[in-house]
Amino acid sequence: MGCIVALDIGGTQLRIAVYPHTGTNPRTIQHAASRGLEAGILERLTALIDDTWPDEPVDAIAVAVPGPTNPRTGIVISTPNIPAWKQYPLAELLSNKYQVPVYLGNDANLAALGEWKYGAGQGHHDLVYITISTGIGGGVISNDMLIEGWTGMASELGHVTVYPGGPICSCGIPGHLEAVSSGPAIARYVSAQIASGRQSSLSSLAEYNARDIYDAARLGDQLAEEAFIHAGMYIGQAMADFLHMYNPSILIFGGGVSQSGRFILDSIKESMRLNIMNKAYLDGLEIAIAKLGDEAGLLGALAYAHIRMGKI
Amino acid sequence: MGCIVALDIGGTQLRIAVYPHTGTNPRTIQHAASRGLEAGILERLTALIDDTWPDEPVDAIAVAVPGPTNPRTGIVISTPNIPAWKQYPLAELLSNKYQVPVYLGNDANLAALGEWKYGAGQGHHDLVYITISTGIGGGVISNDMLIEGWTGMASELGHVTVYPGGPICSCGIPGHLEAVSSGPAIARYVSAQIASGRQSSLSSLAEYNARDIYDAARLGDQLAEEAFIHAGMYIGQAMADFLHMYNPSILIFGGGVSQSGRFILDSIKESMRLNIMNKAYLDGLEIAIAKLGDEAGLLGALAYAHIRMGKI
Repeated sequence: MGCIVALDIGGTQLRIAVYPHTGTNPRTIQHAASRGLEAGILERLTALIDDTWPDEPVDAIAVAVPGPTNPRTGIVISTPNIPAWKQYPLAELLSNKYQVPVYLGNDANLAALGEWKYGAGQGHHDLVYITISTGIGGGVISNDMLIEGWTGMASELGHVTVYPGGPICSCGIPGHLEAVSSGPAIARYVSAQIASGRQSSLSSLAEYNARDIYDAARLGDQLAEEAFIHAGMYIGQAMADFLHMYNPSILIFGGGVSQSGRFILDSIKESMRLNIMNKAYLDGLEIAIAKLGDEAGLLGALAYAHIRMGKI
Repeated sequence: MGCIVALDIGGTQLRIAVYPHTGTNPRTIQHAASRGLEAGILERLTALIDDTWPDEPVDAIAVAVPGPTNPRTGIVISTPNIPAWKQYPLAELLSNKYQVPVYLGNDANLAALGEWKYGAGQGHHDLVYITISTGIGGGVISNDMLIEGWTGMASELGHVTVYPGGPICSCGIPGHLEAVSSGPAIARYVSAQIASGRQSSLSSLAEYNARDIYDAARLGDQLAEEAFIHAGMYIGQAMADFLHMYNPSILIFGGGVSQSGRFILDSIKESMRLNIMNKAYLDGLEIAIAKLGDEAGLLGALAYAHIRMGKI
């Protein structure tokens, strides 16, 4: 039994790790900037793989892809950040070059798998993971199985309608969760309120992101705090729906915005309570923050390789 | 290998069937009215079982329960129609009496399983079933597995928020799909429009249900037709969300309201197209009407018994 080469193609970083056949301590782990390299992304990727290729045998390459991906065919359907990857046979290209099986999965789905196998969700059989940052994504484990769907496009948890007729989402549909509760959506809410005459310490800044708004909220800025409460309200509404749909024993929050502590989490919990149809969904429900941080994609890819190879 | 005794506890009918160890042709099948018998429902149920108990050995009893049910513990959490069944150990009571394993499942989940194994969903691995009648329920199969959730309460597909702040649902939460698109919700829409001065052939009736409204729509009543279009719009919005979440290869519509032909289905399809984030979700997607009719619960219970006994 050989190593697993895991790759995570992030919006700003390419990550690669070589894992031994058991355990999660990588033999090597490397990062490289990904932004601005879209044109030569495959060459960049293979250079990174060549660089880290171990002397030991490799059993498989597993890749976390930032967009809808068909894990059965190994084809990337599309990715927002890499326009050239449309119906792109990434698995075939890599497996021809390296002569090992190549497994692809959506990055948020694989992060959910990583948290379940090695992170905050260990020991749970039914898990909903949601990551809130520039976008909102997620992954679901049901009865110890990753829900992938027919063509691998399941669990787009940021793309559910929570506010019909509301702000247009990055995907073009109005009122999706991502359009009202992602980091950029929180910043847009603050801008709109300031434009309508609200006072805020943030009005002196030319630009601000969710992190700046968090800092302002901690210093007592009322509008900043309200922006998180507003975003959390919609997240809680969606989470109640997810509880009705998936009935998990744990909800895991990942992504930068989830680090905004009580400002957003209290609002999420309150909104979940208001929107739950039966208190039984909340009995014993664990609510946790993701543990794996930037390594969620790599460890998820590792877990996914094990699943596809029949080891889990 | 013996028989399976399958029970379906419906709002108006108790159904029971005895199935041989292979095939779906029941040795016996019986119906009895259930309404008004809530007080003595267990006695009624056991009388029906006693009545139909076969001479051959019985491997298991499987029961489709009209409400949230924990299939792991065999406890009925609650049912709208049988107030006495709260945290009710139905599986234990029956298995003590009949000395065979007893498997319980939510009726809509089991109907989904029935359609997958024996009905409109045969051959599909990823399926979403939604039933639209007095209430709205559903069930989901992912990668050939019924999604049940931690405590068996998954796939309450009628209880997702499609209209925040909208009409109050039977469950108490505002704006759920069931509150705007079930049969009674369609009738309420017509009443409200008539009360506000709209003309309709239905205004001459003291009472009308979705079936009456369907008949009026077929005779060209504009308000009746509009009522189905309105309901279908919200169903389509929810179905787009379900596609983003479950990415099935087939959607199956069951229940009386789904029989209202093009009036509702065209509206559902149009709304799905408007609300889908990526056309890839619709490529090759099959849309079907449920095939098993009133037997969905019994056949679902049969399929569930086989799964729990490890035969599927």
